[in-house]
Amino acid sequence: MPELRKDPITGRWVIIASDRPKRPEDFLKYEAPEMIGKCPFEPGHEEMTPPEILAFRDKETAANKPGWTVRVVPNRHPALRVEGELDRRGEGMFDLMNGIGAHEIIIETPDHDLKLEDQPPEGIAAVLRAYRERSHDLRKDARFKYILIFRNHGEPAGAMLQHPHSQLMAMPVVPKRVQEEINGAKQYFKMRERCVFCDMIREELAARKRVVLENEGFVVLAPFASRFPFETWVLPKKHSGDFAAMDDAAILVCARAFKEALKRTTQVLTDPPYNFVIHTSPLQENEDELHWHAEIIPRLTRVAGFEWGTGFYINPTPPEEAADFLRSAQP
Amino acid sequence: MPELRKDPITGRWVIIASDRPKRPEDFLKYEAPEMIGKCPFEPGHEEMTPPEILAFRDKETAANKPGWTVRVVPNRHPALRVEGELDRRGEGMFDLMNGIGAHEIIIETPDHDLKLEDQPPEGIAAVLRAYRERSHDLRKDARFKYILIFRNHGEPAGAMLQHPHSQLMAMPVVPKRVQEEINGAKQYFKMRERCVFCDMIREELAARKRVVLENEGFVVLAPFASRFPFETWVLPKKHSGDFAAMDDAAILVCARAFKEALKRTTQVLTDPPYNFVIHTSPLQENEDELHWHAEIIPRLTRVAGFEWGTGFYINPTPPEEAADFLRSAQP
Repeated sequence: MPELRKDPITGRWVIIASDRPKRPEDFLKYEAPEMIGKCPFEPGHEEMTPPEILAFRDKETAANKPGWTVRVVPNRHPALRVEGELDRRGEGMFDLMNGIGAHEIIIETPDHDLKLEDQPPEGIAAVLRAYRERSHDLRKDARFKYILIFRNHGEPAGAMLQHPHSQLMAMPVVPKRVQEEINGAKQYFKMRERCVFCDMIREELAARKRVVLENEGFVVLAPFASRFPFETWVLPKKHSGDFAAMDDAAILVCARAFKEALKRTTQVLTDPPYNFVIHTSPLQENEDELHWHAEIIPRLTRVAGFEWGTGFYINPTPPEEAADFLRSAQP
Repeated sequence: MPELRKDPITGRWVIIASDRPKRPEDFLKYEAPEMIGKCPFEPGHEEMTPPEILAFRDKETAANKPGWTVRVVPNRHPALRVEGELDRRGEGMFDLMNGIGAHEIIIETPDHDLKLEDQPPEGIAAVLRAYRERSHDLRKDARFKYILIFRNHGEPAGAMLQHPHSQLMAMPVVPKRVQEEINGAKQYFKMRERCVFCDMIREELAARKRVVLENEGFVVLAPFASRFPFETWVLPKKHSGDFAAMDDAAILVCARAFKEALKRTTQVLTDPPYNFVIHTSPLQENEDELHWHAEIIPRLTRVAGFEWGTGFYINPTPPEEAADFLRSAQP
């Protein structure tokens, strides 16, 4: 059973994966890349994954058989496990709990080589709808406090398999960075009685220095204090705390913004490895302080000890210049 | 002039290096490794660096000439600049200031191939004394709030040059992670009237599950909620908030603990890339909440989008097992 452990000083939670602990020699082994014809996410290879949880598929076709366009399966090696009690406990001065949670894979397309950003907007919208449906289902489970949706593209960004996929983790704690954003937004609201994200969007749209693109519902911008070169955020223009509250129409508008943001990023930076992660409000609370958004982070620089040890970043590309390059791209 | 920019939501400061901004193509270029005979940190190549700020050298020898054992020089491409006013200002809703600070390189040895951990304890002690002397000098400058000392070993850990060196940055803000530790320690003190680090050390020394080594002044342990596999912390057993308050005798004891911690780490993990960073108290304050320590982080796993986006880590090696391996090493 994996464990969730809390740092007694900062309160940061960490998953300690004790099921198959890695020994020193495991870090030296070459991790074989996916072999052609052996990809577990291909149609026809459905038996290579655990049984599907959700699939958008032809009505004629059977579960766990070809005929799907988007398919959601449990991660075969989950960082958190769905079975069991939370069992919060102390161990001397330390706090920990069982690593309860869900860890799912969203296979975005049957086509091994079709990148997310190259799908038509309707294809991307289907992926976002899969995120939403899984979110709605998982939030019924009172053990979970947060649903984290993220995507790793390229091996340097942590993608173990090349076939386009995203990941979803339902977990019993709110991630620290998200909590910090909520705390910051709460504090700002207390002072100004406005959402800090809404204010930021208004200023950015007026100044146009860091805006990459805008459509009827969404804005994509290079944030003022970007940690990473060419980091961008995709935000709904109208305040909303919950990614999963989007209806199908909003999801399609969102998909178009996403597609363009990713296309421009991959064009300007020549298909870089990247991560994106969705920041949405915690579950089991009726609060709406956060303004949900997605953060797209190209992996261009090595993050050195300085950044690890301090949470303090050096970004070699001013966001104004990044936005300029991204705006000028013709994807 | 580099800028320090504050994220309006979380309050996180970021250095935006606008002097020589990196364009998209700069991230594609191959960074040439240091060429043999061209290393700027070799004796005889002193003119390749800016003039030295401090050197431990034979009395007979002249500044910026060979004859030194440890040499401190300004970074030729500093992330922060020492000249100018802090000039805190707003830009609409955003806060920023000039990127004022010092960025220095501590060249640890004239020998290109002599790793820090392979130096005798006295050699490591000389490096720590150089950190201390630079700290004492820089804290006279009222513009600086923090002195960050860190070391990158190996290219995946961010080391651009192979010649053994560490770095020091004096900066006008307290890094977020350090501030979080101070806040956590303050909160703990309020509840218990004890230092959380002192309590942790006491428990770890009693349980012996995560202790890697101990000498008369220092303990090295794999922290309960380690973010990274084989992460270790080097802590003074007696409470002290300030790294730079050590006298020469304490520094030698510290050097011995450091040497053994690094030797064990490099032996068990076969010379991994690693970072270490010293967490010490901010300047210009007479507070002593923090218990200074160094964090050693081997770079064994790719950190994926999950970690970036959330501040939430998955560690595949329980610290108890890491400590076991490190204890069993025979360096």
